[in-house]
Amino acid sequence: MIVRPLDAGDKDQWQALYDGYHRFYDRPDLPQDFFDGVFDRLMGGDPQDFHALVAEADGRLLGLTHYVFHPHMWFPEGVCYLQDLFASADARGKGVGRALIEGVYAAADAAGGPRVYWLTQEFNYAGRMLYDRVGVRTPFIRYNRPL
Amino acid sequence: MIVRPLDAGDKDQWQALYDGYHRFYDRPDLPQDFFDGVFDRLMGGDPQDFHALVAEADGRLLGLTHYVFHPHMWFPEGVCYLQDLFASADARGKGVGRALIEGVYAAADAAGGPRVYWLTQEFNYAGRMLYDRVGVRTPFIRYNRPL
Amino acid sequence: MIVRPLDAGDKDQWQALYDGYHRFYDRPDLPQDFFDGVFDRLMGGDPQDFHALVAEADGRLLGLTHYVFHPHMWFPEGVCYLQDLFASADARGKGVGRALIEGVYAAADAAGGPRVYWLTQEFNYAGRMLYDRVGVRTPFIRYNRPL
Amino acid sequence: MIVRPLDAGDKDQWQALYDGYHRFYDRPDLPQDFFDGVFDRLMGGDPQDFHALVAEADGRLLGLTHYVFHPHMWFPEGVCYLQDLFASADARGKGVGRALIEGVYAAADAAGGPRVYWLTQEFNYAGRMLYDRVGVRTPFIRYNRPL
Repeated sequence: MIVRPLDAGDKDQWQALYDGYHRFYDRPDLPQDFFDGVFDRLMGGDPQDFHALVAEADGRLLGLTHYVFHPHMWFPEGVCYLQDLFASADARGKGVGRALIEGVYAAADAAGGPRVYWLTQEFNYAGRMLYDRVGVRTPFIRYNRPL
Repeated sequence: MIVRPLDAGDKDQWQALYDGYHRFYDRPDLPQDFFDGVFDRLMGGDPQDFHALVAEADGRLLGLTHYVFHPHMWFPEGVCYLQDLFASADARGKGVGRALIEGVYAAADAAGGPRVYWLTQEFNYAGRMLYDRVGVRTPFIRYNRPL
Repeated sequence: MIVRPLDAGDKDQWQALYDGYHRFYDRPDLPQDFFDGVFDRLMGGDPQDFHALVAEADGRLLGLTHYVFHPHMWFPEGVCYLQDLFASADARGKGVGRALIEGVYAAADAAGGPRVYWLTQEFNYAGRMLYDRVGVRTPFIRYNRPL
Repeated sequence: MIVRPLDAGDKDQWQALYDGYHRFYDRPDLPQDFFDGVFDRLMGGDPQDFHALVAEADGRLLGLTHYVFHPHMWFPEGVCYLQDLFASADARGKGVGRALIEGVYAAADAAGGPRVYWLTQEFNYAGRMLYDRVGVRTPFIRYNRPL
């Protein structure tokens, strides 16, 4: 298995994975426009927009992650927010998630801003089993503006 | 009390407030360079860096908030992250925090990306008494890369 | 202020406090039978049923607590569960809650089973401000059978 | 698999399971006296002390649970506290935990006090995957007296 940046030829496999990710969060049946727009952003090369890494074995994509660098008040070098992480159901338990997170760590190091964080639902037990090994839980919880 | 953008003439009062904020998080005695750097960024006008609002009454600054717009995978218009919020100790309970959060809501509306979120420590009871009234708690918790 | 066991002559004042407690948990308008039954149990002297302490100043009851000793698998001496704690609204911030909890600590010591615990809602911010000072938060959360 | 009350002939198998339970909570090497004392209590028939159920298949014990009825201020019929639940490592994922919890539900119904609750560590992910299916998470968290 290798972890590498998303490539223009990955679109179909990437979309299947990202659709699976949204189904996990109860957002099925997103329109094709949504996937087209996201893929264009990921391939657009804007350093201030999201980047993607994929895990691949034998020409098959097993997982993806999307991350973005954004400013932080306390750290002038900025921070890296790992927003999306997903492994296909039949690739679970094989280290795909860990490899992707470590790929983001390496990308953050290369960008000169090694701080990486992510948010997850308190009851995402399977995810947290991994996160407790590769990350540190903080006492911070998220509030949203009601819309 | 009015809520307005930070102004170049606010530096001394702003610094006193922001120092109080950091003391709340057990970070006393930050160097002057830190405050100079942050203030320059806030006044620099970069739309992708942080912005500041202050609450003022009778020429005195009672509180501050710093927020930033950053990309989001699911919402092409981006989201607004309210990172810092602070009211001076003698201005607590007078609606300063609420007015500042509502000021960020208005700024996000004006920017065309109305989604606003923030993070807070689970045990920030005084803050959460306010946040439960102006926001919605989510089940998301934060993990950090160990550094 | 003194903390002392509930007395037969306290019924009216005790009921007013305990009604306030239930209103806090959104259970208004409990029938008189409920209060009669609870008061009889508290005064019944059964060592395996609940006990009550009250905080009193100038002949007025300011708060109450109800606690029970029950067996524990790991500690043969049993444990003490502090179930109810309440201070009247106009007595908040005067140390009533702390005095009552410390009264239960002393009762548990006298009974030979010094372990005391209680449960509180995660968002009971005012209560937790006190509990963090007199107790230790554990990572244990409660599940109920669905009924 | 059947769920049945603990029997005098179960001691060796019961002890192996209960030792595994304590190792899960980082309490290895408990003395034989501890196990003797607990087993005697479980077999002693005191209605106010703990009871035990075991899950058995082919003469082998796969799991255990210990529960106790104790008074509750609001419910005169009392409540049932399920304190210990454990399945042997090689019996996980086979419904042992669920069968034991449902066994306690049935015992509570038979005793006329159907309310059952238990506490678990917030990060007991494997346990909570089951508890979310057979129980309801509440917002209650536990505080201990510092000792």
